[in-house]
Amino acid sequence: MLNFTFQNPTKIHFGEGQIEKITKEIPKDSKVLMVYGGGSIKNNGVYQQVSDALKSHSWQEFSGIDPNPQYDTAMKAVQFIKNKGVDYLLAVGGGSVVDAVKFIAAASLYEGEDPWDILSKGAKVKDALPFGVVLTLPATGSESNNGSVMSKGDDKLFFGSPLTFPKFAVLDPATTLTLSDRQISNGVIDAFVHTMEQYVTYPVNAKIQDRFAEGILHTLIEEGPKALDEKSKNDIDVRANIMWSATMALNNLIGSGVPQDWTTHMIGHELTALHHIDHARTLSIVLPATLKVCREAKREKLIQYGRRIWNLNSANENEIIEQAIAKTEEFFKIMQVPVRLSDVSLGENTIEPVLQKLEQHGFTALGEHQDIDLNVSRKILQTAV
Amino acid sequence: MLNFTFQNPTKIHFGEGQIEKITKEIPKDSKVLMVYGGGSIKNNGVYQQVSDALKSHSWQEFSGIDPNPQYDTAMKAVQFIKNKGVDYLLAVGGGSVVDAVKFIAAASLYEGEDPWDILSKGAKVKDALPFGVVLTLPATGSESNNGSVMSKGDDKLFFGSPLTFPKFAVLDPATTLTLSDRQISNGVIDAFVHTMEQYVTYPVNAKIQDRFAEGILHTLIEEGPKALDEKSKNDIDVRANIMWSATMALNNLIGSGVPQDWTTHMIGHELTALHHIDHARTLSIVLPATLKVCREAKREKLIQYGRRIWNLNSANENEIIEQAIAKTEEFFKIMQVPVRLSDVSLGENTIEPVLQKLEQHGFTALGEHQDIDLNVSRKILQTAV
Repeated sequence: MLNFTFQNPTKIHFGEGQIEKITKEIPKDSKVLMVYGGGSIKNNGVYQQVSDALKSHSWQEFSGIDPNPQYDTAMKAVQFIKNKGVDYLLAVGGGSVVDAVKFIAAASLYEGEDPWDILSKGAKVKDALPFGVVLTLPATGSESNNGSVMSKGDDKLFFGSPLTFPKFAVLDPATTLTLSDRQISNGVIDAFVHTMEQYVTYPVNAKIQDRFAEGILHTLIEEGPKALDEKSKNDIDVRANIMWSATMALNNLIGSGVPQDWTTHMIGHELTALHHIDHARTLSIVLPATLKVCREAKREKLIQYGRRIWNLNSANENEIIEQAIAKTEEFFKIMQVPVRLSDVSLGENTIEPVLQKLEQHGFTALGEHQDIDLNVSRKILQTAV
Repeated sequence: MLNFTFQNPTKIHFGEGQIEKITKEIPKDSKVLMVYGGGSIKNNGVYQQVSDALKSHSWQEFSGIDPNPQYDTAMKAVQFIKNKGVDYLLAVGGGSVVDAVKFIAAASLYEGEDPWDILSKGAKVKDALPFGVVLTLPATGSESNNGSVMSKGDDKLFFGSPLTFPKFAVLDPATTLTLSDRQISNGVIDAFVHTMEQYVTYPVNAKIQDRFAEGILHTLIEEGPKALDEKSKNDIDVRANIMWSATMALNNLIGSGVPQDWTTHMIGHELTALHHIDHARTLSIVLPATLKVCREAKREKLIQYGRRIWNLNSANENEIIEQAIAKTEEFFKIMQVPVRLSDVSLGENTIEPVLQKLEQHGFTALGEHQDIDLNVSRKILQTAV
């Protein structure tokens, strides 16, 4: 096991009816800004539940946070906050809203000239407004970690700070019952690939981390398809198990003490930035290709993955690896997401622009061995065509 | 899944050489009290490492914390703290030292007349000194939870407060290499039974919690015997996996959203208080009897436990349950702990005194269904004879 430091201070309120807990979580004298995306929370009752919980607070709202949250929109929120003296933020929505609120929290108190430097130059976050989360889409894990991904033009970049953990997060699986099939499948795939990025690397004999990762994968493989099936899609336990899986997939726990990859995410981010493909759908396209191209570096963990997750028991290890990758693609297809660039009408000609963006962002040594250079990334994209 | 609230703010520094991290974790201007038990930390280098890390701090020490930490000793520390103006505590040792420091932290700022009321009457902890932990014995999970068990005469009682989470905990598996076989086996059994108390109850379709619990059980079953085997006992990975398992077994995570039992612990505490048997050795005696007596209430989870942990695949479910309990006892024997009262020279005549103590402490409705009354506890003890 590798040495690590782990801390996750976010308080989780999980279960039906838990939105009312925000009344006590947000200090009474706060000037609250509720931040959300489109109008879906007005149709599914969440906006009303949050309003009810905040009825003794002073609060205002800011809507219109985009999927793949945009810098320009976030900066409008920052201006609003400065004008109105807001001192507590409440993100209501999915990972995009939570990521945007993390950036808004940091940018509102940023003393440098351009808050985009936090993402583009790694400028240090020295202070941030406190914020809570009401999660309505299980996927990114952002509700219980300190990371954020923001977009500006065709740049999609990451930042994280110890100051950008949510103070609390409410996870009510009932709020996910109105999600579209596409939102559900994207969420399950996002959580699945988060887990794979921290699990299918090279073994360091970290048994708890491996088994927790395997527990998440098993759960997503079992529950994901149920959430798309008319017979079981309203089963609250299905939604609860997916929701808790997604949080556990990226709350720093399973990644502590083990090598991490993130090649698939980095390439995927460029595909989203250039072609506006849903984040999860870039992952389902890139992951199988990454596993194929890096099969030797990931050999031992791919075999473990095949045996423990897909119950493959061939005596031929290469066969296990091939079948494990095939099973992964099969699962992705069951979850109705693309597995090739051609499935989203992209071809060879997207490869060089993606590589240029990777180079521009400094992502020329990706992966758990930092040996995925632009040539290997090209091979991955060619494999994904 | 049941509704739950989960928060665990303790920062973990895990791995070899991490003790030096306490230098930065404890505020420079603190008046620190290092609290420990016997002299073992002076022989294994831990005392020296902690002293080195504190060389720019103002610190003093208080030693002599007992196994099954005693109220009287803890109150001497409280007096010392008040006399010397100590404002930060550092527990260096195993669960007993950590539990004692939690009580000392709360008792030092307790405004009522008798701090024992915190345990005996559930008096509220309104303030507590901040404290950190250097763990040297993986077992109780106390390094990353807010609970504490204290003894006074033949009373052994529990308290917990949101104010008694450690600020940080250093887990260096190398510090465990000098433990005796008895300490190792006690630690593994303690972590194992913590997991069982939260796992073998009744199913609520909480898949992540179940699989995480199973991951801990598998790891302890694999690694525990290796830590007693001359060939592998110095393998730092073995120690690391046991250490992280023990933390995960009782940091509130696997118990969130599921029913919990704790019958074995409550009966075990009385056996320790009356007969000074090591805590873990009361658990290895009581758990098999609890599983046997409560086999119908725990039926579904016992079958799941048998299938997933012990790979039992009989078509006869009763057979699976019997074999699962037998396998558990077998594992306990491999770990060199007793599985019957007679193994520690106790017999029928201890049963009524234990029941009297349970009644006196109000433990007359134990278990995940709160239906373990004194008659059922009697049956459990009779089964354990």
